[in-house]
Amino acid sequence: MTISSDLYAEVLHFYADQMQRLDNRDFTGYANTFTKDGEFQHSPTLPAVYTRDGISETLVEFHQQRFAGQQIRRRHWFGHVALTEQEDGSIAATSYCLVLTIRADVKEPEVGPSCVVNDVLVRDEPGNLLMRSRRISHDQLFD
Amino acid sequence: MTISSDLYAEVLHFYADQMQRLDNRDFTGYANTFTKDGEFQHSPTLPAVYTRDGISETLVEFHQQRFAGQQIRRRHWFGHVALTEQEDGSIAATSYCLVLTIRADVKEPEVGPSCVVNDVLVRDEPGNLLMRSRRISHDQLFD
Amino acid sequence: MTISSDLYAEVLHFYADQMQRLDNRDFTGYANTFTKDGEFQHSPTLPAVYTRDGISETLVEFHQQRFAGQQIRRRHWFGHVALTEQEDGSIAATSYCLVLTIRADVKEPEVGPSCVVNDVLVRDEPGNLLMRSRRISHDQLFD
Repeated sequence: MTISSDLYAEVLHFYADQMQRLDNRDFTGYANTFTKDGEFQHSPTLPAVYTRDGISETLVEFHQQRFAGQQIRRRHWFGHVALTEQEDGSIAATSYCLVLTIRADVKEPEVGPSCVVNDVLVRDEPGNLLMRSRRISHDQLFD
Repeated sequence: MTISSDLYAEVLHFYADQMQRLDNRDFTGYANTFTKDGEFQHSPTLPAVYTRDGISETLVEFHQQRFAGQQIRRRHWFGHVALTEQEDGSIAATSYCLVLTIRADVKEPEVGPSCVVNDVLVRDEPGNLLMRSRRISHDQLFD
Repeated sequence: MTISSDLYAEVLHFYADQMQRLDNRDFTGYANTFTKDGEFQHSPTLPAVYTRDGISETLVEFHQQRFAGQQIRRRHWFGHVALTEQEDGSIAATSYCLVLTIRADVKEPEVGPSCVVNDVLVRDEPGNLLMRSRRISHDQLFD
């Protein structure tokens, strides 16, 4: 754990902003947190997609297929963000993610899946964090 | 995201302390995390209350009406705290909140509601964070 | 709250690393986050155990007794970490913990128990954080 506490807080805030964009269905805003050639593997059963356009398109499709016509909100909680500085200067981040789905007028959310999110973070020219890749595994899937 | 990582960690710690007070039913201690004229809208269906006395009184009443005679604990989890510095120097904070209610001898908590907490934070004379306002929306309520 | 934001972020990262070790069943790695004579009271109904060997052994046994032959994963989420600097230089940490148990091919995790974790943290010679003691209470147990 040679990670500075400055970087740690910065990454937590980056995730807060990023995942609120996703849950607000600002898919373009979410895609813009990736590098231009960013990789996003949304689910272990789907192929990875690339580029910001590819990322926002896959999310639009996913929501269309899964939630069209339903009054729901999703909340992707993150926990226990663990960082490792890599030799190329990028930062590997391994975090818990718990997905909540809330249906209109139902107080108790649907809980799950519980996931692990594996990200690689880099910096752009001005020094802001961007995501080079995100791969997600689901805890209920065993090999 | 021009927020310093120092401020980010400070706000997270402020919330940890504040919400443990609430869940420990230290309503006076919770109210003291607000400014003297602080505003608290506890629920979207209730009018806002003002001042520390007003805030602690509304919480005493709420617990009396909802939980009198029941052996329960409540835990208000926060997630994805996102901060924005505002023109007047205050800090707007938008966070996820998930409420757990635990009943005596029942291992599985009741989960929900899932909420979004909208706060405005300011500093007092010595420089400590205080809350000028808190407004809470419930994810299961759609317009 | 005289705690520096540097320390706050450092403790959050310490916990992320520590609890991922536990949930990955790296019990030796988890025990190594304690001091050599560290104390671990895993559950309010069990006696405390001491030393790194004692801690890893009690976890091996617990998993053997509870989960042998079952395809499950556990996730111990932490929330609202609140720190207090103590007179002897150690740091007391009081945090929420929510345990999720995920079964193979079941998307919705079992939720609970909801706990409070009471830790005492110290620094070793090079200055890294270690845990001198951890005691866990369960929210569904009332006196």
